[in-house]
Amino acid sequence: MAEHSNHHAEAAIPQTMQETGAEERDPESISLQQPLLKRNRTLSSTPLAMVGAKVSHIESLDYEINENDLFKHDWRSRSKVQVLQYVFLKWILACLVGLLTGIIATLINLAVENIAGYKLLAAVSFIEKERYLMGFIFIAGANLLLTAIASVLCVCFAPTAAGPGIPEIKAYLNGVDTPNMFGATTMIVKIFGSIGAVSAGLDLGKEGPLVHIGSCIASLLGQGGPDNYRIKWHWLRYFNNDRDRRDLITCGAASGVCAAFRAPVGGVLFALEEVATWWRSALLWRTFFSTAIVVVVLRAFIEICNSGECGLFGKGGLIMFDVSTVTVTYNAWDIIPVAVIGIIGGVLGSLYNYLLHKILRLYNLINQKGKVHKILLSLTVSLFTSGCLYGLPFLVECTPCDSSLSESACPTNEGSGNYKKFNCPDGHYNDLATLLLATNDDAVRNIFSTNTSTEYHPLSLLIFFVLYCILGLFTFGIAVPSGLFLPIILMGSAYGRLLGIAMQSYTSIDQGLFAVLGAASLMAGSMRMTVSLCVIFLELTNNLLLLPITMLVLLIAKTVGDSFNPSIYEIILHLKGLPFLEAHPEPWMRNLTVGELADAKPPVVTLRGIEKVDRIVEVLRNTTHNGFPVVEEGVVPPMGLAVGATVHGLILRAHLLQVLKKKWFLREKRRTEEWEVREKFTSVELAERERKIEEVAVTKDEMEMYVDLHPLTNRTPYTVMEGMSVAKAMVLFRQVGLRHLLVVPNYEASRVPPVVGILTRQDLIAYNILNAFPHLAKSAGREKGS
Amino acid sequence: MAEHSNHHAEAAIPQTMQETGAEERDPESISLQQPLLKRNRTLSSTPLAMVGAKVSHIESLDYEINENDLFKHDWRSRSKVQVLQYVFLKWILACLVGLLTGIIATLINLAVENIAGYKLLAAVSFIEKERYLMGFIFIAGANLLLTAIASVLCVCFAPTAAGPGIPEIKAYLNGVDTPNMFGATTMIVKIFGSIGAVSAGLDLGKEGPLVHIGSCIASLLGQGGPDNYRIKWHWLRYFNNDRDRRDLITCGAASGVCAAFRAPVGGVLFALEEVATWWRSALLWRTFFSTAIVVVVLRAFIEICNSGECGLFGKGGLIMFDVSTVTVTYNAWDIIPVAVIGIIGGVLGSLYNYLLHKILRLYNLINQKGKVHKILLSLTVSLFTSGCLYGLPFLVECTPCDSSLSESACPTNEGSGNYKKFNCPDGHYNDLATLLLATNDDAVRNIFSTNTSTEYHPLSLLIFFVLYCILGLFTFGIAVPSGLFLPIILMGSAYGRLLGIAMQSYTSIDQGLFAVLGAASLMAGSMRMTVSLCVIFLELTNNLLLLPITMLVLLIAKTVGDSFNPSIYEIILHLKGLPFLEAHPEPWMRNLTVGELADAKPPVVTLRGIEKVDRIVEVLRNTTHNGFPVVEEGVVPPMGLAVGATVHGLILRAHLLQVLKKKWFLREKRRTEEWEVREKFTSVELAERERKIEEVAVTKDEMEMYVDLHPLTNRTPYTVMEGMSVAKAMVLFRQVGLRHLLVVPNYEASRVPPVVGILTRQDLIAYNILNAFPHLAKSAGREKGS
Repeated sequence: MAEHSNHHAEAAIPQTMQETGAEERDPESISLQQPLLKRNRTLSSTPLAMVGAKVSHIESLDYEINENDLFKHDWRSRSKVQVLQYVFLKWILACLVGLLTGIIATLINLAVENIAGYKLLAAVSFIEKERYLMGFIFIAGANLLLTAIASVLCVCFAPTAAGPGIPEIKAYLNGVDTPNMFGATTMIVKIFGSIGAVSAGLDLGKEGPLVHIGSCIASLLGQGGPDNYRIKWHWLRYFNNDRDRRDLITCGAASGVCAAFRAPVGGVLFALEEVATWWRSALLWRTFFSTAIVVVVLRAFIEICNSGECGLFGKGGLIMFDVSTVTVTYNAWDIIPVAVIGIIGGVLGSLYNYLLHKILRLYNLINQKGKVHKILLSLTVSLFTSGCLYGLPFLVECTPCDSSLSESACPTNEGSGNYKKFNCPDGHYNDLATLLLATNDDAVRNIFSTNTSTEYHPLSLLIFFVLYCILGLFTFGIAVPSGLFLPIILMGSAYGRLLGIAMQSYTSIDQGLFAVLGAASLMAGSMRMTVSLCVIFLELTNNLLLLPITMLVLLIAKTVGDSFNPSIYEIILHLKGLPFLEAHPEPWMRNLTVGELADAKPPVVTLRGIEKVDRIVEVLRNTTHNGFPVVEEGVVPPMGLAVGATVHGLILRAHLLQVLKKKWFLREKRRTEEWEVREKFTSVELAERERKIEEVAVTKDEMEMYVDLHPLTNRTPYTVMEGMSVAKAMVLFRQVGLRHLLVVPNYEASRVPPVVGILTRQDLIAYNILNAFPHLAKSAGREKGS
Repeated sequence: MAEHSNHHAEAAIPQTMQETGAEERDPESISLQQPLLKRNRTLSSTPLAMVGAKVSHIESLDYEINENDLFKHDWRSRSKVQVLQYVFLKWILACLVGLLTGIIATLINLAVENIAGYKLLAAVSFIEKERYLMGFIFIAGANLLLTAIASVLCVCFAPTAAGPGIPEIKAYLNGVDTPNMFGATTMIVKIFGSIGAVSAGLDLGKEGPLVHIGSCIASLLGQGGPDNYRIKWHWLRYFNNDRDRRDLITCGAASGVCAAFRAPVGGVLFALEEVATWWRSALLWRTFFSTAIVVVVLRAFIEICNSGECGLFGKGGLIMFDVSTVTVTYNAWDIIPVAVIGIIGGVLGSLYNYLLHKILRLYNLINQKGKVHKILLSLTVSLFTSGCLYGLPFLVECTPCDSSLSESACPTNEGSGNYKKFNCPDGHYNDLATLLLATNDDAVRNIFSTNTSTEYHPLSLLIFFVLYCILGLFTFGIAVPSGLFLPIILMGSAYGRLLGIAMQSYTSIDQGLFAVLGAASLMAGSMRMTVSLCVIFLELTNNLLLLPITMLVLLIAKTVGDSFNPSIYEIILHLKGLPFLEAHPEPWMRNLTVGELADAKPPVVTLRGIEKVDRIVEVLRNTTHNGFPVVEEGVVPPMGLAVGATVHGLILRAHLLQVLKKKWFLREKRRTEEWEVREKFTSVELAERERKIEEVAVTKDEMEMYVDLHPLTNRTPYTVMEGMSVAKAMVLFRQVGLRHLLVVPNYEASRVPPVVGILTRQDLIAYNILNAFPHLAKSAGREKGS
């Protein structure tokens, strides 16, 4: 990074750059060999950003409206019809996002249920013939194969497809553009990887991946297709900006949750509470529309599958874990067990966060060693999982079936259903096999089942709980698409049911409800959501009477969890080094002014309103900034007084590159007319972002020419005066959704530069500020420590 | 207002003001004689604000953090324990808000059900004896008496208690402080007025009033009691600011909705979607906590009442209109009737908005004539309502009971229940009396009832629908506390059920569900909410299977409604002239700069850092501004260059008044030390707002002294440069929640004033801008018209 740090250091640059055009042509192939977060070196040239190993090199997004002359003209020239086109298309896109997410989610479900179902049936047939070893070899082999497919896809084609993807989406909606996150390759790998990983019986869910898939669909639709094969349809040009893409991706994330849990309102609320940074009423409505479409699609497929055409898939309707049949009766005393569930859930959840953080750091060390290590790690976890799932049921004793149950209900040997026979004699069932030798969804359904208080032995539940704690911790970090929801639900439901057995004599609450509440408490303890989790659980279990106690459990668990550590998504964001801008400034930020912050950075690089080409080339080659203040010198204002330099606005790197590429040069210093710029540039071209200075060829003659930057300059950048506290500047930065914030001087003298600094996202990250101003770290530490 | 418009016009002011101290002592008594929205004349001195009859004179709220020296010290001196105290107290307050709202809501319910119930029972006993005229006299008299109580309370003691209150709460959370909105008198009048109006059988609900009551409770708790009897508890001092009050009132509004519909999640979402302007994740969580407490309180009361100790109240649990027993079966074709419900609902909803707007304007004319007219209007509506409710059932024929029903079920003559006997012979029932001679809640329950497809004649339903359309339009504007939810639900359910009968042969959807969907569609068509309405209906009806079709109905109805007119709350906001700042700037705002806007106002009034007392008094007496830029002249900055004037910051009127009241004057021009100001002022005193310059006495000698304004100046006001477009300035203003926005010059010359203007909420309201810049109105009109 050092060679890019300051353009003053190296003034000698090649005068013609035609020979440098061929470098780094294929960003896709490069990104696969480099570590994930180091591709773009934007924002890296500040000393603040260079301190600390956690700083990433990720682009920020332009949510600010770039009010330059061309934009104003473009806006004025839009007719009523075009505005209607835009609104109509926005709704069509929201509809398509819902439609495609619904279809893909159903296909994933179909594939998983059939692959996993037939695999389990085959294993059961080996067990029935008492060929136990063959059964193990078969199931372990199938799982290894499925894991290998998922892992190889992830490692070789799209490393960003590993993990849940939710933290990156959260960062994107905050304004951080993680590279290769929403591409077509990523989406395809995520779909097939998720099918493989979930059918392999690994302790992970398809929920997080579905959120990511929904967001990928939204992003691809918005830009008109994959990066290299975009539809150049002129209608879509309105959507080629970061603001509209943000809205679409929010719809995609909500659709993903909706498709995963069949919870339309829960999906909207999840997007609102956990994922989105900015929110408007109109967006709430559009998101709701997308999830409504998803539900319609899901219902249509369920209707089709209920007629038995979907193989092993097709049992159950829109509600996944229906517990509405149980009568919920509780009195004032039951508030005590409910509080206990919440408290223990909060403690367990934060403990899970803590341990997962440690294990992810360990896994990072292994994963850094190369692709083979990543794949081997996944295969090891798969083998361990297969061994435990298959072997542990042999340890418990068989239980005779309750005589009140019909013969077809107990024991069963089918794919789903309670009371699995496994290795037991007729009329007996193996309770641990009921939980372990099933798909994860079925396992949850079985453990949530109500009015079955004698079905599970405490010992079996304890084995299940401990096993899933271990699996949940060690499975998440491997290189396959993995969701966090289901592992936590599995753990939580086991813990809740165990607690239910322990408190059996003190309360009349059903054990199945204890399992539901346990799952909710662990979710709240780890993910720290409240309203969205509450609605998701409501929609999952279809029992409105549970609402008051669910709310209490969630609130208690979140409160307890928050007193120990941040939420799991925040931990992952931090681990990945994404520069996420928090909602609240730290208290010590009030003691620092933006002027002091700007002084700690290298001097700001400014351009003049009419600038020489070689200066522009020099600046672009030697800095990695994405915006440059345009300053006017010695202008005589209308009042006739001689004045110093004045800020004209801010110009973006992308626009400077367009100028160079289009060779929009002037022989002499003069202001251009509006029609000249309109003739040369379209707003579609200006919306393009990906271009490198190395690809631009400028001849020696052209270097001596001039460019009129005025028409392309954003004339209304947001500014703060240098005396503003960092805390208030950060509120402005985040609330308005900025990428660059100009710092202007308090004292207005003719020789003081009109811009004293420019602040970006990286400069406002607490970690970076504390590194540059260690004395603040002390006071921050004192406050935390005391 | 003209005499206050510009301080330059009248320089002669009394040198001693001791004799003016006694004027306007009792703001309460004054406000009752003046029209509601003219008490505070703040913000009225700009020409922009004076144009147009709709401009109101309402204070804005200070959501910005006032970073002056004292604040900084106060913040630094807060210990860890005090921070914990603050957090703890915030949760305690949220809990208390939920607790008190729950208790008051239950008491209102108890009172209403008992008063209305015994009233109806008495009327029925007259009818049984065939003394029909006596029955009418009794019921009309009782209704008149109850209406008179509600109306007199409202008119004489708290005019702000009339209506639902939700638009004013929405405006408050946007930053507009409607006077007398959250006082103790208002709350008490609202409680008893609501009991009276609802028991009087008027076509209005207690939902809106409950939201207002919840907000009043929150506001009173936050400030430690009613205005004149506040608890001076030092812990509460942290909450004496507009930001914390905003959070509490959001909790209160959510609790109100929760208490009204027993819908905790719906309450949170209503506060989020409809009421709140700013939203944070932490607030979501705290609001959720409040509503959880409300639900616990409601459940406890329901438990108690189920044992029969609450008179006629006590039937039903947490879910008001349970329709979960019906099996929802629908196929792809049923999407057509669902779409029809949505489209007609949207049309009817927007028609309702349109007509209500007209009638409210008519009522305004009547209400302006005086208190007696207001009361007479209410009584007329009450008499008309009584006549219709009692008389219309005589018009329809009696229906024989279905033989499948038990004798105790049909006919009944009790307070609640289907199949009312009324004037019919044994074994027959009067279907219109079932709907009309019941409390509004019971009427909804009866019309939502499922599997009763033959109970209601289409003619009866049509009479009911037309009657409630008329009542809904003419009842809302009278001077009693009135909610909008229930009238719309009643209208909508009748329309839905009628549509159900019409489409009986084409669909298998139950008529009760048609009624539910009709109610939802009319709500969405009039109020234009989606997610919150969806959840409220889910929680009201306890039928998750309805979710997909409810979502579709809501989306269609809202889309249709939006294409005609704005939502009912926006219409009321507009009618009341509240300066609500919209989320999106108008497109033509891009063509105007803040500099042009500031130029259209009178010159900004600035103060110097060390100012003479008589100048401060003069400024305060002759302007009504609430903030003044503090400007430093001829300062030599660290670099040693001579410079022009510099902005030091912004000082609030309230702080200047505190300086005068405390007589913190200096004999000579000098800067004070930090300890001096800390000795004199506490941050509690500075947080006080209510004080008039007329109450401050300054002697002639003191007039010649100086004040050092530096330590009390907010040194970091948000600023924009004069070239910024109004559109972007408005985004900043609303997103950050400002009250004053300083406009600084683009050109920095030594003789240009360092502040060229100051923008407030009123200046950014589209209506006001268009009045000052008529040429923009033309382009705005052209866009709309074309």
